[in-house]
Amino acid sequence: MNNYDKYKEHCKKIADLYHASALLQWDQETYMPAKSAPTRAQQLSTLAGIGHELSVNTEFGNLLSELVDDGSLSEVESRNVVQSKKDYDKSLKYTTKFVKEMSEAVSAAFQAWQKAKTDNNFAFFAPKLEKLVALKRKECKLIGYHEHPYDALLDEFEPGAKTKTIEAVFENIKPKLITLLNKISNANQNNDAFMFQNFSKDKQWDFGIDLLKQMNYDFDAGRQDLSTHPFTTSFSAEDVRVTTRINEKDLSEMIWSCIHEGGHGLYEQGLKPSEYGLPSGTYLSLSIHESQSRLWENNVGRSLPYWKKNYPLAQQYFSEQLIGVSAKDFYKAMNVVKPSLIRTSADELTYHFHVMIRFEIEKSLIEGTIEVRDLPSVWNAKYKEYMGINVPSDAQGVLQDIHWSHGSFGYFPTYSLGSFYAAQFFAQAKKDIPELNAKIENGELNSLLDWLRNKIHQHGKTYTSDELCKMVTGKTLNSDYFLKYAEEKYKNLYGFGA
Amino acid sequence: MNNYDKYKEHCKKIADLYHASALLQWDQETYMPAKSAPTRAQQLSTLAGIGHELSVNTEFGNLLSELVDDGSLSEVESRNVVQSKKDYDKSLKYTTKFVKEMSEAVSAAFQAWQKAKTDNNFAFFAPKLEKLVALKRKECKLIGYHEHPYDALLDEFEPGAKTKTIEAVFENIKPKLITLLNKISNANQNNDAFMFQNFSKDKQWDFGIDLLKQMNYDFDAGRQDLSTHPFTTSFSAEDVRVTTRINEKDLSEMIWSCIHEGGHGLYEQGLKPSEYGLPSGTYLSLSIHESQSRLWENNVGRSLPYWKKNYPLAQQYFSEQLIGVSAKDFYKAMNVVKPSLIRTSADELTYHFHVMIRFEIEKSLIEGTIEVRDLPSVWNAKYKEYMGINVPSDAQGVLQDIHWSHGSFGYFPTYSLGSFYAAQFFAQAKKDIPELNAKIENGELNSLLDWLRNKIHQHGKTYTSDELCKMVTGKTLNSDYFLKYAEEKYKNLYGFGA
Repeated sequence: MNNYDKYKEHCKKIADLYHASALLQWDQETYMPAKSAPTRAQQLSTLAGIGHELSVNTEFGNLLSELVDDGSLSEVESRNVVQSKKDYDKSLKYTTKFVKEMSEAVSAAFQAWQKAKTDNNFAFFAPKLEKLVALKRKECKLIGYHEHPYDALLDEFEPGAKTKTIEAVFENIKPKLITLLNKISNANQNNDAFMFQNFSKDKQWDFGIDLLKQMNYDFDAGRQDLSTHPFTTSFSAEDVRVTTRINEKDLSEMIWSCIHEGGHGLYEQGLKPSEYGLPSGTYLSLSIHESQSRLWENNVGRSLPYWKKNYPLAQQYFSEQLIGVSAKDFYKAMNVVKPSLIRTSADELTYHFHVMIRFEIEKSLIEGTIEVRDLPSVWNAKYKEYMGINVPSDAQGVLQDIHWSHGSFGYFPTYSLGSFYAAQFFAQAKKDIPELNAKIENGELNSLLDWLRNKIHQHGKTYTSDELCKMVTGKTLNSDYFLKYAEEKYKNLYGFGA
Repeated sequence: MNNYDKYKEHCKKIADLYHASALLQWDQETYMPAKSAPTRAQQLSTLAGIGHELSVNTEFGNLLSELVDDGSLSEVESRNVVQSKKDYDKSLKYTTKFVKEMSEAVSAAFQAWQKAKTDNNFAFFAPKLEKLVALKRKECKLIGYHEHPYDALLDEFEPGAKTKTIEAVFENIKPKLITLLNKISNANQNNDAFMFQNFSKDKQWDFGIDLLKQMNYDFDAGRQDLSTHPFTTSFSAEDVRVTTRINEKDLSEMIWSCIHEGGHGLYEQGLKPSEYGLPSGTYLSLSIHESQSRLWENNVGRSLPYWKKNYPLAQQYFSEQLIGVSAKDFYKAMNVVKPSLIRTSADELTYHFHVMIRFEIEKSLIEGTIEVRDLPSVWNAKYKEYMGINVPSDAQGVLQDIHWSHGSFGYFPTYSLGSFYAAQFFAQAKKDIPELNAKIENGELNSLLDWLRNKIHQHGKTYTSDELCKMVTGKTLNSDYFLKYAEEKYKNLYGFGA
């Protein structure tokens, strides 16, 4: 076996363990009986431990060092070993002691957060979160950074991303979004009351499967199940699973979770099976992942052409509930914009304020310009400032998200970046694919999927998000694409001048 | 950490890997999308490899050597380390080269068997099976044996079992079973035509769940799903899953698979969670496992008291199909005895001829008194001799079972031993539990389950089957218990004199 083959074998082994864990987690969220929880946690911890040992294996490190200097590799091979070497070097920076301390702090914080949220008692969570923030600040030093400590944390979710760049993206869009939002709130509001009737679970399930099939989600290489929180997981490009949630009192929840997770799923199904376990067979970053889910959810799924095709289907399933509702009415209802308290149920515009608020807060927390005790007041002030909302309780405010209790700092901005990438990619797709809107209106979504496969999916993690964006659209990320898309769409939806 | 705690930790780690593999296999049989098969096989192979490395780890071996001489251990602890040392020593006997050769031979034989069975072409399977048999003969030498080479293979499935003992058990019962079978075939035959109508899948599913609940199968520590071949699997005593198969044209398939797998499941749920990964938290052997499934399936499930309770429920689900059928009629139909070609659908009496034939053949194969090329003719002659059956094709004959293609020699006899243990245990339970039949008739199955938990389940693998049988019934295995049970039951069912 030559060095590159040895490298591939080792990566495969790590990936096998990682995917076995992913199956144990999928099962935990879908089918696992209740009493199994503690043993499952132990089993996951054992697999993670073995996976980590393989990742920091010294022989593997030596192999990588030889390979990065191996001039005989192809370009993709070179990119793979460089990426793997970067991951390896980063793994080595974490001492066993630090990993253990962090894992215990996360476990304590997560438990405290659950109780604090239920009891609406931030003070119960605060000391555990303080410990976690202290460790995250330490982690920034362990990993190292050039400009901003938060860069070190961003790198886990968005390799190569810089705090400065994200600030610029947000600063550009913030005032423009506020202006747009004001126009919308001053216009006549659209009716969406008919979305909140009784919609049977079985029919919603079938409707969702229809939508996934139309997207060309491959059910021979995936499946959909139910879970409390919708998610996508992958055990290889040939086994990518999505879950959905069905609320019988609100048709939209199922629709958005199906299309959103379906978008994530199509990305994973589009990775090359031959590159299993290698960077070239792995998703690029969380923001690029989110760009795929948001492109299908927002740019396709919340468009008029999409509902011209699919509203008649909705009517077949729910003829009673949708009596007297036109496709246009349905489209309008699916795009109602209204500032709200909870990020996960926000519309596609106000969503970004939720994200910006979290980004600003966690950045300040990490640089030490605010402390954990300040969180509720800072949170509530920002909700008032950006969206004019009074936060009635910490449970519906600063305690709403799981992320910080999991130690995930640097994750939130990827949600917004994903939407902005989606808009920029979709604008390019419209240029590259003749009559894309007409195709969507006919339910012919395969040319769009082919374009995504070719432009984005097939490259895996062999480029940075920046490089990919330039390759696909000729430019780096610019949130004006999102803004232009939003202005045009909502101008029509709410009937105000440009 | 003291030595025993270190030992426990290591066993836990091995068990975690083993149970992760079991979940991957469960998923493969229930929910996995089709395209995932090759990658799943690779993932399973990786986990198995890591598990094997842990099992033969030298440090672990040294720890075990110290522990078997450690006078401070409790009795259960001592039994655990002795059993683990035995397993460890056995694992060491397999060289990496031999394991690889065997795994390749199994893979080739399994693929050839699938095609040979489909095409009814034994010659296609024969050369692969020859290779496998040669390796199994070699394996007997590797492992070592005192009396008969087949003992070495039996040990994998039935620790401590001897060919000689099993021969004696079978020789005792064979002529008596033939006599009983003759009486039955000369009597008036019972009607079971009403079992082969149309029974809706959904109703069968619900009925099966009711039966499992009545058995006190814990759905908070398990679940039932559908699969092509019913099976039971366990990821810990708190997560034991069964699967069933539903044939809409034959009600009995679902009933027997639910009760049978439920019996296996109750055994696994009855192991002590605190002994996770240790012999004391592991099932004893395949025949003891089968004794639990057969006790519930045959001694309970095929009894008149059981159907006095449950037939009214069957009538609720299938009122149309069961018009004019009494509980007694149903009971008789559930116990029709008729020699047949296929083992898995045989009744509880002729089943043992299927097993004896396989036992005799594989014993001769391993000792070298017959060769692979002789299999079809030997098989067909035995079916004619024991059951008066002409085998019309190898596909329905020597090619019907998967076991040999998997390299599983020594597995088959545990099926019959399981039924014989079941009869002996159940006879004891009837003595120990007052009014057991009346309790079954009232659906009060918990006292039987408590008895099994106390007498059998809680001991895990800290005794041999022989030792356990003596502890529970005062005697070692004696197939006369089965015979007595069968004679009494079928005398009544078919109305002939003793």
